[in-house]
Amino acid sequence: MTVMAIVLAAGQGKRMKSKLYKVLHPIGGKPMVEHVVNTLEQINAARTLVIVGFGAEAVKGHLGDRVEYALQEQQLGTGHAVLQAKEAFGDEDGITIVICGDTPLIREQTLLDMMNLHEATGAAATILTAHMEQPAGYGRIIREAEGQVSGIVEHKDCTPEEALVKEINTGTYCFHNKKLFEALSQVTNNNTQQEYYLTDVIGILVRQGAVVQAHCMEDSSESIGVNDRVALAEAEVLLKKRINRQHMLNGVTFIDPDNTYIECDVQIGADTVLLPGTLLRGSTRIGEGCTIGPHTEIIDSVIKDEVTIKQSVLQEAVVDSCTSIGPFAYLRPGARLGKNVKIGDFVEIKNASLDEGAKVSHLSYIGDAVVGKHVNIGCGAITVNYDGFNKSLTEIGDHAFIGSNVNLIAPVKIGEGAYVVAGSTITDAVEAGDMAIARERQVNKPGYADKIKARMKLRKSGKAE
Amino acid sequence: MTVMAIVLAAGQGKRMKSKLYKVLHPIGGKPMVEHVVNTLEQINAARTLVIVGFGAEAVKGHLGDRVEYALQEQQLGTGHAVLQAKEAFGDEDGITIVICGDTPLIREQTLLDMMNLHEATGAAATILTAHMEQPAGYGRIIREAEGQVSGIVEHKDCTPEEALVKEINTGTYCFHNKKLFEALSQVTNNNTQQEYYLTDVIGILVRQGAVVQAHCMEDSSESIGVNDRVALAEAEVLLKKRINRQHMLNGVTFIDPDNTYIECDVQIGADTVLLPGTLLRGSTRIGEGCTIGPHTEIIDSVIKDEVTIKQSVLQEAVVDSCTSIGPFAYLRPGARLGKNVKIGDFVEIKNASLDEGAKVSHLSYIGDAVVGKHVNIGCGAITVNYDGFNKSLTEIGDHAFIGSNVNLIAPVKIGEGAYVVAGSTITDAVEAGDMAIARERQVNKPGYADKIKARMKLRKSGKAE
Amino acid sequence: MTVMAIVLAAGQGKRMKSKLYKVLHPIGGKPMVEHVVNTLEQINAARTLVIVGFGAEAVKGHLGDRVEYALQEQQLGTGHAVLQAKEAFGDEDGITIVICGDTPLIREQTLLDMMNLHEATGAAATILTAHMEQPAGYGRIIREAEGQVSGIVEHKDCTPEEALVKEINTGTYCFHNKKLFEALSQVTNNNTQQEYYLTDVIGILVRQGAVVQAHCMEDSSESIGVNDRVALAEAEVLLKKRINRQHMLNGVTFIDPDNTYIECDVQIGADTVLLPGTLLRGSTRIGEGCTIGPHTEIIDSVIKDEVTIKQSVLQEAVVDSCTSIGPFAYLRPGARLGKNVKIGDFVEIKNASLDEGAKVSHLSYIGDAVVGKHVNIGCGAITVNYDGFNKSLTEIGDHAFIGSNVNLIAPVKIGEGAYVVAGSTITDAVEAGDMAIARERQVNKPGYADKIKARMKLRKSGKAE
Repeated sequence: MTVMAIVLAAGQGKRMKSKLYKVLHPIGGKPMVEHVVNTLEQINAARTLVIVGFGAEAVKGHLGDRVEYALQEQQLGTGHAVLQAKEAFGDEDGITIVICGDTPLIREQTLLDMMNLHEATGAAATILTAHMEQPAGYGRIIREAEGQVSGIVEHKDCTPEEALVKEINTGTYCFHNKKLFEALSQVTNNNTQQEYYLTDVIGILVRQGAVVQAHCMEDSSESIGVNDRVALAEAEVLLKKRINRQHMLNGVTFIDPDNTYIECDVQIGADTVLLPGTLLRGSTRIGEGCTIGPHTEIIDSVIKDEVTIKQSVLQEAVVDSCTSIGPFAYLRPGARLGKNVKIGDFVEIKNASLDEGAKVSHLSYIGDAVVGKHVNIGCGAITVNYDGFNKSLTEIGDHAFIGSNVNLIAPVKIGEGAYVVAGSTITDAVEAGDMAIARERQVNKPGYADKIKARMKLRKSGKAE
Repeated sequence: MTVMAIVLAAGQGKRMKSKLYKVLHPIGGKPMVEHVVNTLEQINAARTLVIVGFGAEAVKGHLGDRVEYALQEQQLGTGHAVLQAKEAFGDEDGITIVICGDTPLIREQTLLDMMNLHEATGAAATILTAHMEQPAGYGRIIREAEGQVSGIVEHKDCTPEEALVKEINTGTYCFHNKKLFEALSQVTNNNTQQEYYLTDVIGILVRQGAVVQAHCMEDSSESIGVNDRVALAEAEVLLKKRINRQHMLNGVTFIDPDNTYIECDVQIGADTVLLPGTLLRGSTRIGEGCTIGPHTEIIDSVIKDEVTIKQSVLQEAVVDSCTSIGPFAYLRPGARLGKNVKIGDFVEIKNASLDEGAKVSHLSYIGDAVVGKHVNIGCGAITVNYDGFNKSLTEIGDHAFIGSNVNLIAPVKIGEGAYVVAGSTITDAVEAGDMAIARERQVNKPGYADKIKARMKLRKSGKAE
Repeated sequence: MTVMAIVLAAGQGKRMKSKLYKVLHPIGGKPMVEHVVNTLEQINAARTLVIVGFGAEAVKGHLGDRVEYALQEQQLGTGHAVLQAKEAFGDEDGITIVICGDTPLIREQTLLDMMNLHEATGAAATILTAHMEQPAGYGRIIREAEGQVSGIVEHKDCTPEEALVKEINTGTYCFHNKKLFEALSQVTNNNTQQEYYLTDVIGILVRQGAVVQAHCMEDSSESIGVNDRVALAEAEVLLKKRINRQHMLNGVTFIDPDNTYIECDVQIGADTVLLPGTLLRGSTRIGEGCTIGPHTEIIDSVIKDEVTIKQSVLQEAVVDSCTSIGPFAYLRPGARLGKNVKIGDFVEIKNASLDEGAKVSHLSYIGDAVVGKHVNIGCGAITVNYDGFNKSLTEIGDHAFIGSNVNLIAPVKIGEGAYVVAGSTITDAVEAGDMAIARERQVNKPGYADKIKARMKLRKSGKAE
């Protein structure tokens, strides 16, 4: 049985009040329409056709050739939108799923359950429905005694009895493909909005005597459609709950799942503990037994086992096991930390590797550098990697000791076991085992503190300088 | 129709367990009583009289001459409190709203709806009521068949039948002014608490045959009265939901509305994205298309369009468009950033302007400074603006380059395009196009690292020095 | 009446998917089993016996000799687990509470209420029960007309009528000690799981005609049992609500109780305000009138009154009154701040005391130091306390002024009122009132900026160097 899918993604989304095209608004770090397309790939849809209209190029630019496209130039209703797929799908045998690009939370299993009912009952159409305690505003599903659907009644057309029905149309359907397009050709726009409604297909099929089914999803929150930012935030929160629950079942500890933000593709090992305010984003992978957070953001990074990261920000960093980072550290792209490395507070690492056991404890910037094993970088030491035009490399050999507030003017090499004295600005290579110093000797001026203070006070009073 | 208002704000609030007077506890960044007064201004109350008692001076100090005051010296009940307004309001024609200073969430529209019912029905009194699923503890509204109110029954006096009533008295009322004060003069304190209850006025009016109405508010959460910090936190959370919802409808994206804290007067442009842990406070205004957060606090600042601010704190700062800040930056009062400025990590800016394209990438402090266009401030560079007595100015011309770990001892001027070498302490002006250097030359001591380490080891072992 | 207690803590907790033994997973900063043991201490249990199995040594290592232990070598059911207590308790007179080590939220008062019912009714057994709207999965409590319990029916064995019962068994009991062990000896493992069930004791006692009671707890959320990380997170959130509510009733303001994390033993004074993202952990004690947060973590520290701490991390620090810290400060173990001290941004303090009125405003590290009254430490100044082998002390006298980017190479003493000039590296003592300088003079090279830039550009183009 060939499965095709049509994704309705042509609407403008005026209520989003956005320059960004509606279905491209992300949740869980991915555009809504991508969630829908991913789910269709999971159910092995042979062909997926996205109906684009507003922002067509942006949607195509994002989804690329994972899907086919049809352009709906004018927005003349959902029926009209699906009709744009006729050229591509009209002659195919199989079933066709119609789904909206702004319903990102519908799960693979929900679509499979709908399709199973569809096939088992030989239906011409199966509507994905949900049970809503507050059904006002939604189209109600009217079923016959045996459960078959006799129609969808829009909220405004409901009789008082129909208004009590709590099973509503989610806007997702499974169709016998050819019957869909046959029925669709009979849909008219004889209504106040002058639109072609896809729901009219259901009425046509029922009148033809075809079997129309409805599959009511277990968890109605899956059916959320995003039309404004309130719904966008609701969808984001629902997705967060789903993602976090799965990680918890896998053995990850969350101190507060509501205050922990994990994007869709992130992987986390068992016995890792996530403290409040942790954001794990993009392609981040975290190992086992780590402690992450609080108030830590990790983007597109790889963290091995038993790593501790506190109050820090990491982007495109790679961190080996048993390393400790933060609080208040910033690892930028190209930071590569070995095992048992210690990165302390107010430290930035950029495009630099630090080998096993290296320590950068506080107030340092290490950029464009290769740092050896067990190197100790003193407080305030800096790699001066930029001269205004060029970025240059600093190399530091194993076991070297770099004193506090040292400037290493790149390009420069510090040999293995070398010792650079605090307060030095180093411009030339230091050989292995050598000591380097570049600072002025101290002079004490007896009693001069009072004089200098008197002069400053005078200046403050406006009488001098 | 003249509208007057009486705000009950004389109670001590013992259950707050606070040195701060109850109605001055803030929610959404403003004292509770100020929310009430703001709402009364929105409905164009001609006169607002605040009944003060405990903490009278503090309340007056806060509200100033926006309102009138009457002093309730002893706390003898709500009726007694309203009676303190008799001298000011007793002879006026018009309607009088009575509202508690600790019910900060009642909305303008809710008062207007109550007043409309009041006028339309020619009522002597209209009670603002709410529907509570758990009405225990509240006074119940007893209505006649036609809906008119026949009385308020306190919880402890309820018959079993009355106890089932879920419409409760919120403590807010609209009165025919003269009838209010006439009835009030008949209220006695013949009760166990020996207090004068405002609710007795309702009974008196009913017995007089006057029309008494009740307007049931749509959202009962508006009626929350704050008597302890649990309720204070609940009110804060409810207000947050209300504020955030409005911003979402205006086109602002919230990753998590529950974890985003926006005070009442903040403005935010469309397509701005707020990440979790963002606090926008005071008079802050944010432009369009910005990305703010996570874990960022912005107080009394102005941010233009397309600005990115991550993991940072801003107070009384002004930031022009397309500028990027953080993570871990701190902008203090008087920070003024031009377009396309970059402020990186572990950077503090205080009372300093940075013109278009300037960069301060890491570990710097720029205070009391005027920094030109496209200036590059190296890592660890500092404006030494304070000598223990005086704050002095640093001026840096366009396109100048300040090397890493440079100290600029203010007052000092660095000319346009000048180049200050890393590690220098600059005490004198540098002319445009000049290079300045102030550091000692490097000396390498061959093989000396081992000697120095041996000496240190010895010291560690306690055998030397 | 002697009270004994048996804590069931031998299960493996497979669904936790953890290397850590289940009852040792912490909530509110303490292992679950410790919460249970604490509660038993609160009700003055004369003896508490913990049944250990998986991870026995880890549990013993944690709880020590506060309790007695019995080893359940094989996990043959709850009845079998309790039987391991027979040797210790079998001959005792008194009542015995049986409670699970993974139900950390049951309160002292709840156990007392159960025990009071038990004694007042002369029961042989009293079951602690809860009312569940969704009772599926739980054992139902079947009561006779008079309220006495006639049995517990497991979910799978329920008749349709029994399935409607919403009173469920929480797994906590109070027993007449000798009757417990007598009945337990009759329990068999003739069931599909081949386990000995403690619930069978109830049936045996009922058949004996003994009085069996059930005490239904007021708040069913107390009964949560933690079998996976989803439940662990739920328990953590429930405990948070309980802890925070108590602090609010004591007069602490929470902007958002859901986003404020306070471990069990923390103390907080009245009128302290906690902003979102505050974590107070371990033995931390906070005084009155403080403002803490947002995004601040304080561990095992003592903070006096009127202290402000913003966006910072403190561990094992002591802070006297009216001191201000942060944003972005890090106080490590041994930081001891006097009154009116100011610690600003990007500052680390470790094992150092700062006396009254001292200021460390930005970008500094003060480690292993004794800093006097009203000392001003300039921006970027550092105590160089580590030479690669030794940690040494820096002493700074009252009213001394340490300039920006100064290195104080420890061990070193700076005398009272001394003045150290910015940019100096200080290796030798500075006497009181002296000024110390250690920096090179500035040299300006006219027009040289262009030359140096030209050279760098050339290098960038690859044509030189």
